[in-house]
Amino acid sequence: MTDTFDSTDAVRSGSPLRHLKTETFDGAFKMRLGGTLPGVVCGYETYGVLNADASNAVLMCHAISGDSHVARHEADDEPGWWDALVGPGRAVDTEKFFVICANVLGGCRGSTGPGSIDPETGRPYGPAFPDVTVEDMIDVQAKLLDHLGVKKLAAVIGGSLGGHQAMAWAARYPQRVGACCALATSTRLTSQALAFDVVARNAIQSDPDFHAGQYYGKPTHPDTGLAIARMLGHITYLSSQGMSDRFDIDRDSPRQIDTDFEAKFSVGSYLAHQGQRFVGRFDANSYVTLSMAMDLFDMGQTHEQRVEAFGAATCRWLVVSYSSDWLFLPSQSREVVAALTARDQAVTYTELRTDSGHDAFLIEEDVQRFGPLVRAMIDPPPDSASDMPPAPGCDSLPGVEDEPLSLIDGRIAQLIKPGESVLDLGCGDGRLLSALRDRGAGRLCGVEVKEHSIVATAQRGLPVLDYDLNKGLPEFSDDSFDVVVLSATLQAIGRIDVLFDEMLRVGRRCVVSFANFAYRELREMYAEHGRSPKAKGEYHYDWYDTPNRRFPSIADVQELLANKGATIHRGIYLDTQAGKVIAEDDDPNLNADTAVLVVSREG
Amino acid sequence: MTDTFDSTDAVRSGSPLRHLKTETFDGAFKMRLGGTLPGVVCGYETYGVLNADASNAVLMCHAISGDSHVARHEADDEPGWWDALVGPGRAVDTEKFFVICANVLGGCRGSTGPGSIDPETGRPYGPAFPDVTVEDMIDVQAKLLDHLGVKKLAAVIGGSLGGHQAMAWAARYPQRVGACCALATSTRLTSQALAFDVVARNAIQSDPDFHAGQYYGKPTHPDTGLAIARMLGHITYLSSQGMSDRFDIDRDSPRQIDTDFEAKFSVGSYLAHQGQRFVGRFDANSYVTLSMAMDLFDMGQTHEQRVEAFGAATCRWLVVSYSSDWLFLPSQSREVVAALTARDQAVTYTELRTDSGHDAFLIEEDVQRFGPLVRAMIDPPPDSASDMPPAPGCDSLPGVEDEPLSLIDGRIAQLIKPGESVLDLGCGDGRLLSALRDRGAGRLCGVEVKEHSIVATAQRGLPVLDYDLNKGLPEFSDDSFDVVVLSATLQAIGRIDVLFDEMLRVGRRCVVSFANFAYRELREMYAEHGRSPKAKGEYHYDWYDTPNRRFPSIADVQELLANKGATIHRGIYLDTQAGKVIAEDDDPNLNADTAVLVVSREG
Repeated sequence: MTDTFDSTDAVRSGSPLRHLKTETFDGAFKMRLGGTLPGVVCGYETYGVLNADASNAVLMCHAISGDSHVARHEADDEPGWWDALVGPGRAVDTEKFFVICANVLGGCRGSTGPGSIDPETGRPYGPAFPDVTVEDMIDVQAKLLDHLGVKKLAAVIGGSLGGHQAMAWAARYPQRVGACCALATSTRLTSQALAFDVVARNAIQSDPDFHAGQYYGKPTHPDTGLAIARMLGHITYLSSQGMSDRFDIDRDSPRQIDTDFEAKFSVGSYLAHQGQRFVGRFDANSYVTLSMAMDLFDMGQTHEQRVEAFGAATCRWLVVSYSSDWLFLPSQSREVVAALTARDQAVTYTELRTDSGHDAFLIEEDVQRFGPLVRAMIDPPPDSASDMPPAPGCDSLPGVEDEPLSLIDGRIAQLIKPGESVLDLGCGDGRLLSALRDRGAGRLCGVEVKEHSIVATAQRGLPVLDYDLNKGLPEFSDDSFDVVVLSATLQAIGRIDVLFDEMLRVGRRCVVSFANFAYRELREMYAEHGRSPKAKGEYHYDWYDTPNRRFPSIADVQELLANKGATIHRGIYLDTQAGKVIAEDDDPNLNADTAVLVVSREG
Repeated sequence: MTDTFDSTDAVRSGSPLRHLKTETFDGAFKMRLGGTLPGVVCGYETYGVLNADASNAVLMCHAISGDSHVARHEADDEPGWWDALVGPGRAVDTEKFFVICANVLGGCRGSTGPGSIDPETGRPYGPAFPDVTVEDMIDVQAKLLDHLGVKKLAAVIGGSLGGHQAMAWAARYPQRVGACCALATSTRLTSQALAFDVVARNAIQSDPDFHAGQYYGKPTHPDTGLAIARMLGHITYLSSQGMSDRFDIDRDSPRQIDTDFEAKFSVGSYLAHQGQRFVGRFDANSYVTLSMAMDLFDMGQTHEQRVEAFGAATCRWLVVSYSSDWLFLPSQSREVVAALTARDQAVTYTELRTDSGHDAFLIEEDVQRFGPLVRAMIDPPPDSASDMPPAPGCDSLPGVEDEPLSLIDGRIAQLIKPGESVLDLGCGDGRLLSALRDRGAGRLCGVEVKEHSIVATAQRGLPVLDYDLNKGLPEFSDDSFDVVVLSATLQAIGRIDVLFDEMLRVGRRCVVSFANFAYRELREMYAEHGRSPKAKGEYHYDWYDTPNRRFPSIADVQELLANKGATIHRGIYLDTQAGKVIAEDDDPNLNADTAVLVVSREG
């Protein structure tokens, strides 16, 4: 075994990794872009205990500057880079899971990389080190899992380059992944992100101390170029707002640090400090290699290519983006989700509203918000009995005063056959979907925008997507669900005509429930008093302070659907105030406060 | 006279500036941060002819990498950097205006800069060149204007660093500026923009060929560092979407260029080309000097500081931001506008929706859209007779079928006394404001969001601000207008209660006109037919496809205002369908389709 970690001067002053283990895999390691290594070493750390059937292993994948030290091993250990997520009692609970984190191939913290000794020459590889791809990284990790006796991962989790690895795991080793959490990542870098990498590499490679990559053993290394690359990286990891919050006030008061770089402004001293600290723990060739691996990563530029790339994956998915992340855009995460939904995969997606930028996936405050989604994904609750009240007959609606919508959902549930697949638009806390699952259902998926509702739905073990229904349903293919439900949500949609088209496209059948704004009580308020009506339920707001923007009657909605050529197969009309069903010939448009319609494109 | 342009090797291969003129100003030039130059040279170009009373001079200010060659002088001339805006028949019409563009102090294209010879040493200044501020740049330009016989500029125009100069001109020489057009700029860089400059300067200054700034005459210059700085700059000038549109498709097909930089990706070869081209025409010390001038520019971090900084300015203003500009944010332009409005300055502001990023102010396609605003600002139309139909008596409303809102505006105009200042929220094409001006008015200002309406209002010579009324009126101080008008706009505002608070704060009196959704015809449609009512005017849309989201009655609005403690001084109720006034005791809430209310905070 060649221990690359101590045999070169690539890493000179980084914290020692006390718990680092290394494993050597002898024999030619063929790489995706054609290179071959005579053998590879994998440096890694583990946390917790592998259980008897080896079913509790979770693989954590690190980002470009990370290493195997994902979390502390004990209280007085060096901080880990994801302590907020991983540890005893944390979302990735090391008391429950056997957590593995390996330094990536091409890195400089224990695994084979450009600073490792090339056995053929007895010198570090340097520029001779072959191009590494994300797929090569996970192939080494797969060898490590074999060695550890892990056939299948409970989950693979990573952000940024770690997210690339997690996605590649799910696609390349579909049988070995139970759940995939891909955070702050994408199938392909934006051209802007790629451009930053190019400039960073140019800074390193044009540093006169770079010596075409063979600087090992020389008195100076390309520290200046690497520091500049790191400074640039730090700018891209923060949001503009985050930087302003941090540096605007004391702009002209830099920290006093010992630096040859400019330290005129507070942000300048911060960058100089980050740059200088980095060169003490990282090898420039590894930075070039890993940033190139990110730039070469490509799970598709078009939707079709992405669908193809994820084709073999079968696991559960959690995709998280961060609103102020401009290096890996939320829209890129939605592309991942669209590819997975096109393959009928179970995906939960959220876009966390935060000013933390790309770094958000590492920041404690943000981790506390999305951590529950990770926990729900890797450690789903055992299937529980329905927590929905039993759907009562409508001639008797007990509790209607307290939770009319749950009871309407009960009527909706009765319209869905066991085994059918259901997309619930505006799914709230996932109560309806949960009840359908308990009864036996096909594929289920919720759509929501409220953070706490998304978490609540995910905590029921149900997939839920953070999508704005005003943008339609572009992520879903035609006829991909038996039933699409829109319950008590219509009133908040700007272009309900467009959404109806989308629902009728995606669902073989649609169930729409909505409050009737021409209900007798409301009409009277309007007609007799000339006032904007208010009603119980979703119309209880004042006219000037309501999330609602559409106020249709049953007749309005029926006409709109008819104009679209849709067929209304069934209408259930309720007077929830009076607790009774209104017959079709009893003028529901006047006497019902709520309607439930079953609709499809065809008769 | 020392002609710095030819006496150093700072600029080695840039296009010769055929039309460059230089003027030397002898005597000590004291700079804002304490430095002194023994004299300064100003390189400049001019276009067109100064008229007899020297009233047609327009000063164009260039950005960090620009020069005096703002436009072609003749058809076969080298392209200018702002040909899209400046030239015969262009928005800045060189057949009408005498256009001046000077290379900035600290530059390297004709004006004194770090590459100029220091007469004391006989060698280029290099690192001995003092810190330059934007204020120093315009002080040199002021000397040039004196020399040219221009006492007052018709306008000063610039984008980015040029925008800094334009704003500083208006504040520092208020008597010498008729109009100021500040594009893609801010009173202070964001910390993010500053951070990019820091990294760029670090790249230059850590280049071994920099020799602490005294590289002149040496065989090599810090070309690598300067090229990297320029690459970084180019990324920040484009939007992420713009880069994707340009580079995503042929990502792996770089242009074949001769470069030592990485040219693996198409965006990489683009950046390498831009970087290499730049070092042929620009001096690294000038880049450091000018980027530092931008970083030091500070017209205030807080609103109060900005109000103070613009205190002396008296000119007309045009402020333009670009939606995808992430180097100079639209929110920063709004801060400029807020400071100016707090000083009762006449400002027109628009945020152009574009994917061109910071570069938008230079891009032909974008210039064609905001150019009319520049033209309207520097060359306002002669005051024309009102193009509003005369406000008729309400017992007879001819033409009401065609243009009911113009006629309602006629009623509104009658409620405003000549000489009063008016803020018109949702001003449309500025017709009402124009009519008020023609009649004699105080300060006038419109607020709009539609691009064509903003242009139409500006073309009437009226100030208009591109603001979303859903965000309130934070830019306006308390009691800053006699009258605030909200006409036929209420129905599209999400939180009209919040906007009412804002109107009552900003205006001593408010005039609100709106359609009455409890008008008899609408009530009947609702009460008898149970259908979402439609009406002429702003309620003519289908319920599912309307920009409107609020549907109050007169009684609803009156109650909301009463709940705020506002006093309704007068109500005019109209049945525009029938062409008559509805008396207060004739149930306007039933019989009027439109109300005009005059309201204030106090009784």
